[in-house]
Amino acid sequence: MSLMTGEEYIESIRKRKMQVYLFGKKVEDPVDDPILRPSLNSVRMTYDLAQMPEYEDLMTAVSPYTGRRVNRFTHIHQSAGDLVKKVKMQRLLGQKTAACFQRCVGMDAFNAVFSTTYETDRKYATHYHENFKQFMIYCQDNDLTVDGAMTDPKGDRSKAPHEQADPDLFLRVVERRPDGIVVRGAKAHQTGALNSHEIIIMPTISMGPDDKDYAVSFAVPMDTPGIFMIIGRQSCDTRKREGSELDVGNAEFGGVEALTIFDDVFVPNERIFLNGETEFAGMMVERFAGYHRQSYGGCKVGVGDVLIGAAAVAADYNGAARASHIKDKLIEMTHLNETLYCCGIACSAEGHPTDSGNYIIDLLLANVCKQNVTRFPYEIARLAEDIAGGLMVTAPSEADLRDEKLGAYVEKYLKGVSGVSTENRLRILRLIENLTLGTAAVGYRTESLHGAGSPQAQRIMIARQGNLQHKKELAKTIAHIKE
Amino acid sequence: MSLMTGEEYIESIRKRKMQVYLFGKKVEDPVDDPILRPSLNSVRMTYDLAQMPEYEDLMTAVSPYTGRRVNRFTHIHQSAGDLVKKVKMQRLLGQKTAACFQRCVGMDAFNAVFSTTYETDRKYATHYHENFKQFMIYCQDNDLTVDGAMTDPKGDRSKAPHEQADPDLFLRVVERRPDGIVVRGAKAHQTGALNSHEIIIMPTISMGPDDKDYAVSFAVPMDTPGIFMIIGRQSCDTRKREGSELDVGNAEFGGVEALTIFDDVFVPNERIFLNGETEFAGMMVERFAGYHRQSYGGCKVGVGDVLIGAAAVAADYNGAARASHIKDKLIEMTHLNETLYCCGIACSAEGHPTDSGNYIIDLLLANVCKQNVTRFPYEIARLAEDIAGGLMVTAPSEADLRDEKLGAYVEKYLKGVSGVSTENRLRILRLIENLTLGTAAVGYRTESLHGAGSPQAQRIMIARQGNLQHKKELAKTIAHIKE
Amino acid sequence: MSLMTGEEYIESIRKRKMQVYLFGKKVEDPVDDPILRPSLNSVRMTYDLAQMPEYEDLMTAVSPYTGRRVNRFTHIHQSAGDLVKKVKMQRLLGQKTAACFQRCVGMDAFNAVFSTTYETDRKYATHYHENFKQFMIYCQDNDLTVDGAMTDPKGDRSKAPHEQADPDLFLRVVERRPDGIVVRGAKAHQTGALNSHEIIIMPTISMGPDDKDYAVSFAVPMDTPGIFMIIGRQSCDTRKREGSELDVGNAEFGGVEALTIFDDVFVPNERIFLNGETEFAGMMVERFAGYHRQSYGGCKVGVGDVLIGAAAVAADYNGAARASHIKDKLIEMTHLNETLYCCGIACSAEGHPTDSGNYIIDLLLANVCKQNVTRFPYEIARLAEDIAGGLMVTAPSEADLRDEKLGAYVEKYLKGVSGVSTENRLRILRLIENLTLGTAAVGYRTESLHGAGSPQAQRIMIARQGNLQHKKELAKTIAHIKE
Amino acid sequence: MSLMTGEEYIESIRKRKMQVYLFGKKVEDPVDDPILRPSLNSVRMTYDLAQMPEYEDLMTAVSPYTGRRVNRFTHIHQSAGDLVKKVKMQRLLGQKTAACFQRCVGMDAFNAVFSTTYETDRKYATHYHENFKQFMIYCQDNDLTVDGAMTDPKGDRSKAPHEQADPDLFLRVVERRPDGIVVRGAKAHQTGALNSHEIIIMPTISMGPDDKDYAVSFAVPMDTPGIFMIIGRQSCDTRKREGSELDVGNAEFGGVEALTIFDDVFVPNERIFLNGETEFAGMMVERFAGYHRQSYGGCKVGVGDVLIGAAAVAADYNGAARASHIKDKLIEMTHLNETLYCCGIACSAEGHPTDSGNYIIDLLLANVCKQNVTRFPYEIARLAEDIAGGLMVTAPSEADLRDEKLGAYVEKYLKGVSGVSTENRLRILRLIENLTLGTAAVGYRTESLHGAGSPQAQRIMIARQGNLQHKKELAKTIAHIKE
Repeated sequence: MSLMTGEEYIESIRKRKMQVYLFGKKVEDPVDDPILRPSLNSVRMTYDLAQMPEYEDLMTAVSPYTGRRVNRFTHIHQSAGDLVKKVKMQRLLGQKTAACFQRCVGMDAFNAVFSTTYETDRKYATHYHENFKQFMIYCQDNDLTVDGAMTDPKGDRSKAPHEQADPDLFLRVVERRPDGIVVRGAKAHQTGALNSHEIIIMPTISMGPDDKDYAVSFAVPMDTPGIFMIIGRQSCDTRKREGSELDVGNAEFGGVEALTIFDDVFVPNERIFLNGETEFAGMMVERFAGYHRQSYGGCKVGVGDVLIGAAAVAADYNGAARASHIKDKLIEMTHLNETLYCCGIACSAEGHPTDSGNYIIDLLLANVCKQNVTRFPYEIARLAEDIAGGLMVTAPSEADLRDEKLGAYVEKYLKGVSGVSTENRLRILRLIENLTLGTAAVGYRTESLHGAGSPQAQRIMIARQGNLQHKKELAKTIAHIKE
Repeated sequence: MSLMTGEEYIESIRKRKMQVYLFGKKVEDPVDDPILRPSLNSVRMTYDLAQMPEYEDLMTAVSPYTGRRVNRFTHIHQSAGDLVKKVKMQRLLGQKTAACFQRCVGMDAFNAVFSTTYETDRKYATHYHENFKQFMIYCQDNDLTVDGAMTDPKGDRSKAPHEQADPDLFLRVVERRPDGIVVRGAKAHQTGALNSHEIIIMPTISMGPDDKDYAVSFAVPMDTPGIFMIIGRQSCDTRKREGSELDVGNAEFGGVEALTIFDDVFVPNERIFLNGETEFAGMMVERFAGYHRQSYGGCKVGVGDVLIGAAAVAADYNGAARASHIKDKLIEMTHLNETLYCCGIACSAEGHPTDSGNYIIDLLLANVCKQNVTRFPYEIARLAEDIAGGLMVTAPSEADLRDEKLGAYVEKYLKGVSGVSTENRLRILRLIENLTLGTAAVGYRTESLHGAGSPQAQRIMIARQGNLQHKKELAKTIAHIKE
Repeated sequence: MSLMTGEEYIESIRKRKMQVYLFGKKVEDPVDDPILRPSLNSVRMTYDLAQMPEYEDLMTAVSPYTGRRVNRFTHIHQSAGDLVKKVKMQRLLGQKTAACFQRCVGMDAFNAVFSTTYETDRKYATHYHENFKQFMIYCQDNDLTVDGAMTDPKGDRSKAPHEQADPDLFLRVVERRPDGIVVRGAKAHQTGALNSHEIIIMPTISMGPDDKDYAVSFAVPMDTPGIFMIIGRQSCDTRKREGSELDVGNAEFGGVEALTIFDDVFVPNERIFLNGETEFAGMMVERFAGYHRQSYGGCKVGVGDVLIGAAAVAADYNGAARASHIKDKLIEMTHLNETLYCCGIACSAEGHPTDSGNYIIDLLLANVCKQNVTRFPYEIARLAEDIAGGLMVTAPSEADLRDEKLGAYVEKYLKGVSGVSTENRLRILRLIENLTLGTAAVGYRTESLHGAGSPQAQRIMIARQGNLQHKKELAKTIAHIKE
Repeated sequence: MSLMTGEEYIESIRKRKMQVYLFGKKVEDPVDDPILRPSLNSVRMTYDLAQMPEYEDLMTAVSPYTGRRVNRFTHIHQSAGDLVKKVKMQRLLGQKTAACFQRCVGMDAFNAVFSTTYETDRKYATHYHENFKQFMIYCQDNDLTVDGAMTDPKGDRSKAPHEQADPDLFLRVVERRPDGIVVRGAKAHQTGALNSHEIIIMPTISMGPDDKDYAVSFAVPMDTPGIFMIIGRQSCDTRKREGSELDVGNAEFGGVEALTIFDDVFVPNERIFLNGETEFAGMMVERFAGYHRQSYGGCKVGVGDVLIGAAAVAADYNGAARASHIKDKLIEMTHLNETLYCCGIACSAEGHPTDSGNYIIDLLLANVCKQNVTRFPYEIARLAEDIAGGLMVTAPSEADLRDEKLGAYVEKYLKGVSGVSTENRLRILRLIENLTLGTAAVGYRTESLHGAGSPQAQRIMIARQGNLQHKKELAKTIAHIKE
């Protein structure tokens, strides 16, 4: 089978009969739900762009396992160049969707599980790597979207998995059968689950011997019995139900998150990638997190490009574009955004092969990348709000603009420079609102903080990877210290 | 008449038959509208607290013009101590509402118009100061809430009022009659208009001779014919219509903004405070802005207190409160918040009397105060999101929590530490969402940027008030430079 | 005796035969040493300004204990107004010296010891408060400069005083006699010791029962047998010996620090203010630190004024003053500097009486003040270096400028705008160098970090004073949380 | 000739009879002057490391013009990989010297002049590229150190070169002869001039037709008649003359700057690379600046490594290393330092060939790199001072430590943890002083600001390279704006 078109992708998801709940109700057709559809459209963009010749080099790659051209989101990185292209592909998609396009998590899980299973097998003579490769080739050949699920609910943060009052607060094996295992638990904040054909489960933290049942990794189809999703609320979520294309700011694209519950789900042996080898839980987490922290140096930069552009348009529209402080703020936004990109590129260009042969990013620089992502988008957003002006949060609704009586007043009083319609001015302000306060702010702000690990998680990794001992020796040499 | 109770205030507003539009429809009873009511409740708090003996010293003062005790929001500041109490009152109200309580703008307009009319009269032998005093005493005696309206739509920012393509983009006098004037235009971003008995109009910028018709200040009742309001959209506005107390985060309090239109409104002579004396437009703007920039050193600090508290509770609820990085983030939030408070207190304590006898803040320090307010709440919000964790933007709705089937799963998987209900955990996360992304973020973030003047406006004032010449002389003296 | 003139002060110090060592040698006449003299001149300014009628209100006060006018540096604060005047006096002195004028530490020790001895006596029926008052009146009547010494060397920071390998690493009582005590130890970083008539010793941390011998406070003359000082090296210290007024940047004023050693020094009973009452050590430290953290909201602001002025002059001199980015940087410097001032003013205006009757600052706000001082001067310095340009660190020496051959080239090639001599341009650059890299950088940068307690010390106090519990309750009330 | 050893390099410089002035006096033997020698040692390290097999790959390359192995500092970059290796070489040298090793400027000039001359020749049929290649091969074959000189004194910054009161304030051609040109002027801030065999002159800004005589580029030996240098003062410069290895912090390495004067210097035709083609002045500046802004993403990171290490050692030595706030500050320093490195790597990895065939960095990212370098080293330095503690600026001199009487007291009272000598503790503090306030601070702080162009220069380039138009289009597409 060749690469799917966007439309084929949509229909393939429609056929998966997933269990989706929203606002206390089962959603019968998630594909056509106005709140959920924009997030599907974002993933669709990963298919649409892959069909376009000008993006072939970024969006696709040749699988070394099949010799066939696959979507890069299902690719196992073969070089540092592949890692760099990944980041550029993500920036492109951020620019095209101004939202989370969700498919990265599967790509990052693919590459983390690929190398971790290799090393696990080497030590324990297990069969996980071969299991994983079969699954991977199946996904490549069918051009599937795969969710990668890591974050457990975690309950009391001061306690290990096995210490929790409720043992299910980390996903775990509750039964071991000859043909497979039964798992129970939940994965929180699943952005792409809803739009994925398959889901890869990984543990969420390093584990000790007492956490054996929690050290589990596997893949199952999203419509496997026992899996269901409760969609989380987002700022401004229901505005998408009102039917106003203008008021939502970004009418076409979005992203939603789901609490994904595994209510005693059966996993066949051939889909298991880790099962009790606790010492490899940490490796899988660290590698997945590393790849995913790299990802943010691409996708968030692309979204930042849109926000910078929107702020510049807003200034054009109200006549402030030539003020030196406006120009300076746009420079600062660009500077911060490109700094993130530098981090994304650098950790990729400095990538190196794992023992299994695929390429992994420089872990230190990937963590530095993500740490900056927990800061700069907030400042970029603040500057965008500064340039946009207060109207961004006080402008009347589209219903007012279209109203027979009120429309004329809205038109008249919210007019900016000559030659620009009030409607267009409102459109750009609503886009900025969407990215700084609305549904997309969830992705651009809060997810920038917590996605791929909260800020403190990166700091711990920076401490570990920073080689302080070497730096101390450099200093002692310069200072002529002999101990 | 003595001070109104909160309930009397609500009823007094109900009696004003204002023209209010929301989402393209006229709101027949704004007082009971679920989207509008929380903002009314915030103003009500200014009445409720004034009734409580423990807050009498902060919430009330004795009017030197009548000898009667008045709500401090209608008071003319008689000392630097009054200015300090103003800030403390605002912090208190921010703590009690976690929202904008709107009545400050009238207090700040009162004090700016009081002294500016005095100086205008002195130069032009006009009668504005007496007009204003009569109006002020009427408001004091009837314990009225007064809106202060400054911000015109402004159209093309690179053009002066009289240069705009549409002359109405700044509010102006369109007719002069023996008994008064007729005005046309609009005031944007009016937070408290909806909940005010009266409104004071002021010009929005310094003006030159060509802008004579725009140099106008006056007061009229909010139900004057020709005035109508179009309520602006806010992030998450319609969530208030869903009936979930939990999901809105702050069910009781809020603030909304209105584009307030003056469609050929008649103003009688005795209510006019400025009418063509262009050189005093700048003074009125500068003083009002100064007072209002001081205000932000009180109200936003109070809201910040709630957000810091909410973040601390969130950490208690998920077991992270003892982590050193969590403690450090709470310290940083407190540090930033108290720095804002220092600025609010300092510009007040350094206040001095105007020629008219009322007290005005130190203008330099008030602008420094507001400039910090354009920065620190954003960082406090970012840290709050950091502590809250991603669940803040992915948690299911109350409908899911209450659902027969789903409820048990939500309860189970979103449980934090023992002894805290999942519902309470969700409540605190929704409050943080409300303040960082939702309806209250409009007040805590964007309004902190643009309310009382955008950041660049403060920088211009800091440049003007900073006395760079004196600093240069200090440096030359130390460096022994003789020119 | 009335207030001393500056000249009388110099001579009074000359008469004290202190033991001073510099670069391994005893300094026979510290008053005339070119490295030490500028720091004496800085203290002298506190005498000179007190003689000038225009500064009488700031520089002096009437002692309630004698009814005589005293220098404010020896005053016990009688009101919040006194605390505010203290800060203004410090800003003035910072402006006049661009250096540390050293006398604050005695004033802050006076006020901390005053109230702490009062409370110690009340509990233990000791006689410390009376001892202290006698000493204070003696200092007031003779217009003495008093050093306040707190910081012990501290050895291993992870150990308490009594746990150190060498018991003398915190100053302690080594012998108790009927007529007094003998102490041994050292106080580090003593800025004003050299220029003081007397010195007050205080403990440096809170102490437990095992640290009894370390809980000691007293005052002795600086020329008491057993006391000697080793002057610390400063960046660019020996440049003062070269004889170039130009190259030192600030030829007249400075500050130096001394490691002050107490080599078995006898203290008579009437000069003891604490002696083993360990529980009051923490109170004395906290109060002294609080007053001293307030101080930095005055003195560093005054120095900042000079640095801002110097940067502005540098821009005038090279023709860049009208560039918008230069103007914006000067605004930012002013903004940061005035934010510090706001903190200094606010913690003073919010002062309150202690049980002993003197006034103490608001402890939370004073710690917030100092915390900002650990940050903003660094950014102000960075911006000053930005405006100054690289020439600040690459300009030839005065010797080159005065050289017969080279002088003409230096004149020619380092010329800025017409009408400004190259010499004056060099003078202003040397002043900026002095404040950002040279001897004064020690005071403006590193001392801003560590003086009155290192940053972490303030964070601990902010945590303690921030009343997080109250903030949590505010949040729970708004979120309708019942536990 | 093969690559020189360090010792051979030293002797080769000794043979060049340069005219060097310091403190108004001619330096007869600059190679052995205690103030100048450390800067020579820093350059020497570029020779020493090139001799070591383990660094061959970083330190050397094969010249495509001769097929011979050359020092990378004389190499023309043949690939993006070469650009990456350049940055890694610079980080290594920063780690080994904790100072500026000066040779980068020649490497960056080489690569900028190489491609610019190619394009100039193409347009004007000049012979500059061939001239340059001959010169380059000569330098490669003789392993020479070449200074690159760009910054003119510039006089009044608001005026173009030809508008200055003194026409020599930008270096210019004063005479054109058949065999060459005569130039007059000066180049400021020349870090490596003193230690270079040759010097390449380039213009300092884009130029218009009126600036024809200023659009000149060429190379001459450093001992050409008419060239002389006046060494600039640095913070703590004369401390190097005192003979204390301890007190200088970094006894072996350093960097100095010279005002380098061209007093009617003759340049033969074959050494001219630009002569009046004003439109190519800007290209040469932009490319040199771009390469040099990349350089700072290497060298300053290496110096930062030493400073981070020094701070960590200081914490080890005083027992504070396990405090969570200390660990967190070391993480922050590492994070900032690695962010700079990311920028250095990214602009290199994204390099591309010029028309002439050599590789140039991504200009946008190189400017972003340098812009961050104008900020982060200041914060890293502040954190280092925080960890070091105040003793860094108040510790006694080595003379005190070695003194018969005082030594014992210094030993006793400045002792940190057991097992570490006071001397070693002082050594590490002096190194931190050196990097934050002393001679090395000139390189680590002020040069980070102004070297390779002041901050505003990068902002202008970021504005130009940021492609705002494309970002606006992205935003309009998402917002469905049709104009």
